[in-house]
Amino acid sequence: MSVLTQIKQAPAANPIERLLLATEADMAKVNALILSRADSHVEMVPELARYLIESGGKRLRPMLTVAAAQLFANGTGTAVNFAAAVEFMHNATLLHDDVVDESDMRRGKPAARMVWGNKASILVGDFLLGQAFMMMVETGNIGALGVLSSASAVMAEGEVFQLAKTGDLTTTAADYAEVIRAKTAVLFQAACEVGAMSGGADDAGRKALAQYGLELGNAFQLVDDVLDYGGQSGTLGKNVGDDLREGKMTLPVILALAEASSEDRETITAALGDAEATADQVAAVVAIMERHNTLARTMEQAQAHARSAKAALEALPGSEMRSLLSEVVEFSVVRAY
Amino acid sequence: MSVLTQIKQAPAANPIERLLLATEADMAKVNALILSRADSHVEMVPELARYLIESGGKRLRPMLTVAAAQLFANGTGTAVNFAAAVEFMHNATLLHDDVVDESDMRRGKPAARMVWGNKASILVGDFLLGQAFMMMVETGNIGALGVLSSASAVMAEGEVFQLAKTGDLTTTAADYAEVIRAKTAVLFQAACEVGAMSGGADDAGRKALAQYGLELGNAFQLVDDVLDYGGQSGTLGKNVGDDLREGKMTLPVILALAEASSEDRETITAALGDAEATADQVAAVVAIMERHNTLARTMEQAQAHARSAKAALEALPGSEMRSLLSEVVEFSVVRAY
Repeated sequence: MSVLTQIKQAPAANPIERLLLATEADMAKVNALILSRADSHVEMVPELARYLIESGGKRLRPMLTVAAAQLFANGTGTAVNFAAAVEFMHNATLLHDDVVDESDMRRGKPAARMVWGNKASILVGDFLLGQAFMMMVETGNIGALGVLSSASAVMAEGEVFQLAKTGDLTTTAADYAEVIRAKTAVLFQAACEVGAMSGGADDAGRKALAQYGLELGNAFQLVDDVLDYGGQSGTLGKNVGDDLREGKMTLPVILALAEASSEDRETITAALGDAEATADQVAAVVAIMERHNTLARTMEQAQAHARSAKAALEALPGSEMRSLLSEVVEFSVVRAY
Repeated sequence: MSVLTQIKQAPAANPIERLLLATEADMAKVNALILSRADSHVEMVPELARYLIESGGKRLRPMLTVAAAQLFANGTGTAVNFAAAVEFMHNATLLHDDVVDESDMRRGKPAARMVWGNKASILVGDFLLGQAFMMMVETGNIGALGVLSSASAVMAEGEVFQLAKTGDLTTTAADYAEVIRAKTAVLFQAACEVGAMSGGADDAGRKALAQYGLELGNAFQLVDDVLDYGGQSGTLGKNVGDDLREGKMTLPVILALAEASSEDRETITAALGDAEATADQVAAVVAIMERHNTLARTMEQAQAHARSAKAALEALPGSEMRSLLSEVVEFSVVRAY
């Protein structure tokens, strides 16, 4: 079924659902590959891996990989391997992040570490990373391997930077921009770039998709960081104010600290990094953010990145998929409201 | 300076020291690469990474990689990149293992996690793994990349298997053989195999070096597991009986449990997995092991693997380096006494 027909069949669905439909055949292969490569004779490995993998994540990153490939002459090809590898890299990061952040919940369920423990989460994360590289190697595409291995190192570096900045009141908006680029946007960028590469993109096409992914990833993380302070309940499957309790210096809190009265600063710093901060404390911090408009201003930054992502697509010839990827960006910055 | 001259200049040194001398020029490049790739604009990354990397590990694995390359026509070439990558993979594993095992000491110093915390150790481990893959990608050798990415997944799988078997009194000698193959021997195997590949080995040469590394790695881990119950004090830079306190089912304890009286079994199980087990408790367990000769029988298995490692080298033409690699194996199984 052509992409065009697929998209037309579901006119009412949101862009993510339509992307899912437009990549359905490829994603069926990706999902089969993900399941088979999460297998192991060591029982705990597939148990833990599948618990996370099947927990209802929307698999946006691998969808972007196969969608990016479809934009170019060669089509899907090895993109299936790269898509599964990207999802494994993402899930490895989630397992390690939940240990580092001491998170109880993930996607509305107890985090894997609450079921199998921190130790198994660390090691199964390492296993998924190894399997990801094996799937990439099978493509024989050394250039795309370079993109993803570089992303892997940068992501870890971003996580260390975020850790070093935890609870650090001197963290700047520029520090934050670097953290979200490294820990989130670079994997979106790589997912789109290797998709384009396996689709046979020329240099311009590859650069356009890399830029699209980077900007989409930045927008995505900014929205996530706003949602952490509210938005629709349950949207992220975790608790409102978790970032605050973990001492994460995200843009809404950085902007608020910069402008708050000394009394308000005390309200923020009392809750920041306090795992036991109450819902009332979080609400008081959100009230300060609303007074200084920092959630809305963070959303404006997300929208600016979304515009850049759409602009990057303009370098490509028009197609149904290009339009859909453009709508995906728009949708990603309205999901908060 | 030729390998021959180098080896002859230090007739009294032990084989590891002579291997270091014979690979000195290459290892200088490897060490420079290791230092430069442990760098990052995120200060905590090089601080933590260098603390571990410069803590006096003997860098046996990367030495094996460059030594293996020297056996073949092309010589060192890209082996420097693979050697540094192998050492990064090893150090990433150490960082994660120390978190998983809650180890206080590593190489006679406080473990990195005692200085920078578990969180940073997890994330810097991930960073080193990403950097390892980047160095491999730079060689363009996709076959060798496959060997090392597979090793990476198998190692993590082996660690999960060991974790699942922790304190499990039904653990068999076959389970143990699988654990040490996966968690230790496979990286020795890969280190030697990719060295041979970058040296231009044919299939037979590659297989010989892979087999040599696998058997050496098995011997190495068996000896380590004996040393954990004694040997020269400080040999491993950790405490006697740590494996027992961590509930690790190593061969000396598996064999002892299989043959011990019910009273002796109780002595063992009381200490097994008890982080607070006293030196007296450990000594009582060692006495049981000595009564059943399980430390010596574990050493016999190590010696059998050492013989297989030496036999694997027989497939290669005679050379000074081949002889030295053979002596390295012999030395590795006598270091306990």
